[in-house]
Amino acid sequence: MTDPPAPRESLAASSSFLRACRGEPVASTPVWLMRQAGRFQAEYRAIREKVGFLELCKTPDLAAEVTVFAVRQLGVDAGIIFADILLVLEPMGLRVTFEKGDGPVIHDPIVGARDVDRVTGEIDAASLGYVGDAIRGFKRELPRVPLIGFAGAPFTLASYAIEGGGSKNYVATKRLMYEDPGAFSALMERLSVAITRFLSMQIDAGADAVQLFDSWAGALSPRDYRAHVAPHMKRIVDALPDGVPVITFGTGTGGFLEELAASGADVVGVDWRLDLADAARRLPGVTLQGNLDPVTLFGPVSAMKPAVEAILAAARGHRGHVFNLGHGILPGTPVDHVRALVELVHELSAR
Amino acid sequence: MTDPPAPRESLAASSSFLRACRGEPVASTPVWLMRQAGRFQAEYRAIREKVGFLELCKTPDLAAEVTVFAVRQLGVDAGIIFADILLVLEPMGLRVTFEKGDGPVIHDPIVGARDVDRVTGEIDAASLGYVGDAIRGFKRELPRVPLIGFAGAPFTLASYAIEGGGSKNYVATKRLMYEDPGAFSALMERLSVAITRFLSMQIDAGADAVQLFDSWAGALSPRDYRAHVAPHMKRIVDALPDGVPVITFGTGTGGFLEELAASGADVVGVDWRLDLADAARRLPGVTLQGNLDPVTLFGPVSAMKPAVEAILAAARGHRGHVFNLGHGILPGTPVDHVRALVELVHELSAR
Repeated sequence: MTDPPAPRESLAASSSFLRACRGEPVASTPVWLMRQAGRFQAEYRAIREKVGFLELCKTPDLAAEVTVFAVRQLGVDAGIIFADILLVLEPMGLRVTFEKGDGPVIHDPIVGARDVDRVTGEIDAASLGYVGDAIRGFKRELPRVPLIGFAGAPFTLASYAIEGGGSKNYVATKRLMYEDPGAFSALMERLSVAITRFLSMQIDAGADAVQLFDSWAGALSPRDYRAHVAPHMKRIVDALPDGVPVITFGTGTGGFLEELAASGADVVGVDWRLDLADAARRLPGVTLQGNLDPVTLFGPVSAMKPAVEAILAAARGHRGHVFNLGHGILPGTPVDHVRALVELVHELSAR
Repeated sequence: MTDPPAPRESLAASSSFLRACRGEPVASTPVWLMRQAGRFQAEYRAIREKVGFLELCKTPDLAAEVTVFAVRQLGVDAGIIFADILLVLEPMGLRVTFEKGDGPVIHDPIVGARDVDRVTGEIDAASLGYVGDAIRGFKRELPRVPLIGFAGAPFTLASYAIEGGGSKNYVATKRLMYEDPGAFSALMERLSVAITRFLSMQIDAGADAVQLFDSWAGALSPRDYRAHVAPHMKRIVDALPDGVPVITFGTGTGGFLEELAASGADVVGVDWRLDLADAARRLPGVTLQGNLDPVTLFGPVSAMKPAVEAILAAARGHRGHVFNLGHGILPGTPVDHVRALVELVHELSAR
């Protein structure tokens, strides 16, 4: 509260999360949890009864507050700024709303090549300044806790922009990719430029690491990922400043983990559909993040413990490990089980 | 039509599909497609305007007709009897209906241990005799075409029985698995006994191979699959008669393909999220089935061709390969693209 902001260098040396990202030794495995501020918390639901989702994202004090609350409540080793992967679509020229219970709607989806010209990559990052303000708010409150900034990865954002919302089979997205690879690539490029600007702004505001969420990349075959997505991921990672760890994450991406690492990311997130030992064998040079099945948190702690032990054992001796779930915390997850998980990770890995 | 039914032995020797299942040389790669009789066909939709889905499954003449039609229309190398994985739940004691547009509903789902006692594995397979009749109907019409029988695998059926229908996160299923592994295992055992009886009946009726659809096994971590599912799969495969190839298939199962093979299945189906070359390297001893992304069929044939070539190249030199999609044909898929795919597979693999 009254501490001056810790200089980045001292946090980089003291934070187990940032050390693990760089493959340096840690006293116990750092842990944070995707969607660690969210609907599973009564306090979050109380705030959301008063303000809509987008309003919460765009009110820096509130966004910082829920981010800080999650760190304090759960005892995790990093915060992740409360925001949404779709925010960047607005300054690009698309209109996004969140309908209650229905998920996001993009009101003017991309249909073909000429629609791509409607969106710009050259966004003014100041239009997303509320995310920067929330980051600064978090840093004032918890200067000694590393904070993760994030953005959606270009394929996931392209899917939303083309499908107009969530999708089951990504038919429209893949059809554009197959029928007009030039237009698809142009869209991916514009998204990549905008994402890079958005992440750079978050780093300038104080984010200590950034994560690219490619939630839907697992819908692709490895062949299509290599041809249509991997080059754009690499371009983004290359364009970000050195010294700030980059994490890539997707679900269902076990078939092309090597490609995620080839982007140059320091950390590759792994979902629970893969043994972490397999990922460690395949990616010796990067830190791994993951990979407990989020539904494990609904079961008894006695069943969670051996699952956590198995993950820690798989990561032992590897370059670096950041414990996380294989996907976000689900609504309805018991808060005390989440706290128990964080304690278990610290306790079992410190032995 | 007027041919006498071909004896099983002669079909086993002449059919490229059955030869590939056993790892024997073939003149060109056999191909069939999951959901090759379905809503993408105008003729199927016309029948479904007159009869409901369950009624179609339970009317042997019609079920045989749509099965035969798909083989003739598409030129595939095997039929798969038109039926549904949930049919077996009825004689087990659960009430299943298909609501228009909403998918299946199980009206009295399994909640806890005492509900497991409500279901029996010792089904009278005669109660599913309509599937046997449909198989015999197909064999009268197309005696020289191998026919695949099928059943849902126990985990997928357990998920339906517990969730009461489709599910996104399988929270109830996994919670029972974690909280009461004994009850979960008892349910899986009963399902396995019923599935074995159902498949044996289909083989008696003339099915030349059988496929176990574990559509949702990919929701599990490899660790949970090994502990809670694999032993039941092995028990089913062990109990089936020798000489009839068994295919296992699931989506999102790339993290534990080895376990699918360890069941003793002759053929392992692979979805499109994995390079087939990876699967071939990991499973030298089994035939592989797959693995084109079904959405590829929505794109131009010019984009489909290199994808097919890549799959055929990955399988070259492997023990055996049955070409298929990585999941079922989607509604809206252009029929002429499906036919083009079958021709491409035959043409490119015969070179």
